[in-house]
Amino acid sequence: MNSTIDTLRTLTVDLGDRSYPIYIGGGLLDQPQLLAPHIPGRQVLVVSNETVAPLYLERVLKSLTSFQVETVILPDGEQYKTLDTVNTIYTALLEHRFDRSCTLLALGGGVVGDITGFAAATYQRGVHFIQVPTTLLAQVDSSVGGKTGVNHPLGKNMIGAFHQPRCVLADTETLNTLDDRQLSAGIAEVIKYGLIRDAEFFDWLEQHIPELLTRDPQQLVYAIERSCRNKAEVVAADERESGQRALLNLGHTFGHAIEAAMGYGVWLHGEAVGTGMLMAADLSRRLGWLDDRQLTRIRAITELARLPVHTPPELDAGEFLKWMAVDKKVQDGRLRLVLLTGIGGSVITDDYDAAKLRETLDAFHREAQTR
Amino acid sequence: MNSTIDTLRTLTVDLGDRSYPIYIGGGLLDQPQLLAPHIPGRQVLVVSNETVAPLYLERVLKSLTSFQVETVILPDGEQYKTLDTVNTIYTALLEHRFDRSCTLLALGGGVVGDITGFAAATYQRGVHFIQVPTTLLAQVDSSVGGKTGVNHPLGKNMIGAFHQPRCVLADTETLNTLDDRQLSAGIAEVIKYGLIRDAEFFDWLEQHIPELLTRDPQQLVYAIERSCRNKAEVVAADERESGQRALLNLGHTFGHAIEAAMGYGVWLHGEAVGTGMLMAADLSRRLGWLDDRQLTRIRAITELARLPVHTPPELDAGEFLKWMAVDKKVQDGRLRLVLLTGIGGSVITDDYDAAKLRETLDAFHREAQTR
Repeated sequence: MNSTIDTLRTLTVDLGDRSYPIYIGGGLLDQPQLLAPHIPGRQVLVVSNETVAPLYLERVLKSLTSFQVETVILPDGEQYKTLDTVNTIYTALLEHRFDRSCTLLALGGGVVGDITGFAAATYQRGVHFIQVPTTLLAQVDSSVGGKTGVNHPLGKNMIGAFHQPRCVLADTETLNTLDDRQLSAGIAEVIKYGLIRDAEFFDWLEQHIPELLTRDPQQLVYAIERSCRNKAEVVAADERESGQRALLNLGHTFGHAIEAAMGYGVWLHGEAVGTGMLMAADLSRRLGWLDDRQLTRIRAITELARLPVHTPPELDAGEFLKWMAVDKKVQDGRLRLVLLTGIGGSVITDDYDAAKLRETLDAFHREAQTR
Repeated sequence: MNSTIDTLRTLTVDLGDRSYPIYIGGGLLDQPQLLAPHIPGRQVLVVSNETVAPLYLERVLKSLTSFQVETVILPDGEQYKTLDTVNTIYTALLEHRFDRSCTLLALGGGVVGDITGFAAATYQRGVHFIQVPTTLLAQVDSSVGGKTGVNHPLGKNMIGAFHQPRCVLADTETLNTLDDRQLSAGIAEVIKYGLIRDAEFFDWLEQHIPELLTRDPQQLVYAIERSCRNKAEVVAADERESGQRALLNLGHTFGHAIEAAMGYGVWLHGEAVGTGMLMAADLSRRLGWLDDRQLTRIRAITELARLPVHTPPELDAGEFLKWMAVDKKVQDGRLRLVLLTGIGGSVITDDYDAAKLRETLDAFHREAQTR
């Protein structure tokens, strides 16, 4: 148990009077003293899902014995990330007469966090929110940024709010129950931080991804902390996503096209982002912004993380462009993309030769077909 | 037409980088130059209802010819203030491919404003919002404060967000189509500002309520501006409703009990608040915080505004207390009330003799039964 204390790292996300800590370490679910100071009232609603609750709910509840605690267990899956699901949370809150001093605690991956955060943002015009992310993707992505929301039948994440948590507790032990594909998908977002702004971290990842894949606690803590720190710096400068923050979308426009074309859930989000980052790198090389060696390193780290390096063979350039164009990052017909100017350097731009984008898409399509 | 310019008053609600103007005057709907500077993008969704749209929609659309404008017409009534109705707005926005630079414009009373504001707060995590309130209540109440939201079957206004408009346009001419009961209900909230913090305004109202009832444009502009100014000062000091802002609830705990006990819609909100303020004044006198003369003036102005001064005869003290206790202003079992310490002076307190509250309720019940 003492090993827990050894690996506890605390990172503060600096947002003025809404600043909050991210606790990262192994076995943190068993550390009630971490959560309690961040619960201002006496009522806590824990929201989890059918997959995560059997594994971790009991340990979380043990941390909360001094509060009035209720639970809502959602079905597992992105298809439940809807307004109707949020409404079931409101109903539970009202049935238990939760007042505006209550706290909602999300225990699960990104979907549980997004839904619960949105419920917290909108119940009685905003109540307290705590995140306990149990996937690597959620730990390095949703922990920072305050984005909450649900899908609408006509568009993903179209309904939402910015709502900052009072604390985030990322217990690396929860990653032991994560399947390998999910772990790799999370690593894609970790690599992203290296690529867009942190060359030294990219170097570190080239050495340590094998240890992340074997779930080495010490290295996981380091990778999560450094990822969150990178995201926090970007977000602090641009909380409402007007400029710089868009760099966090590296690989996402390509990736969303794959996800949408294949039907959501066939590719994991992180897998599509992994391939998407490689496509962005390929285009950057064709534009002369990266050299061959850099592109080779990016391809190698993608393979090292066991992420797909080939696009779905059925997607040709025309199909790809069609799906990319419906992505919300299009402004006035020009396709804005995050592209690389080096390892650890990125720009968001619509000022590039569109013919080169076509070349990238054709090249990936050719390669996918000849495998 | 020039008379319009004569009566235009502009009040700025000071909220730092979210400050916005309230334009008040007669005929403002025909002044497109007022709205356009507050619409940053090119897409505008006008949300109105079946009652207001036939009267004013065309004039608003004429002001917006340089934008891509779509409209959503809601059914009229508080019973439609639901998450489902908000969802129809999301659907319209997505069907018309509205992006995050779009603006939602609410044309109607408080219900339309609350629903539309909540949709604006949550579409793509927040888009621009403009209010064109067409009832006196909405002009003096929802114009300031940023409260948006909808009802849940288990509670009124339980789902919502704070979201400030980019501007408010209060055209006093729209009050010409308001029925007399609605006008009086709006005046109740106007009187409230005098009672809680503006004795001079209360004096003015004692003289000028008859002119408000005949819809004198000049006096309406004055009353609306002064009401909004009072509310803006309270809200600026306490945007998220932790302390002082609760003074705006004078009469509301009593009033909500009447509304809820009678079934929502039987009494108008403003009517219930009018009677509720008189009850708060009666209790304040019994506590020795007001004198007889002050109470007499408050009763007189309530009658002058054609607001009810009697509670529903079927509501005895026990019933009243039961309904007051479910009101959300109860904290830990103590019934916190806004009470008067003079005309233009108020406190929020749970430190009063509960027996006196019972006396007030009994007295009103007796009087209601012997009419």
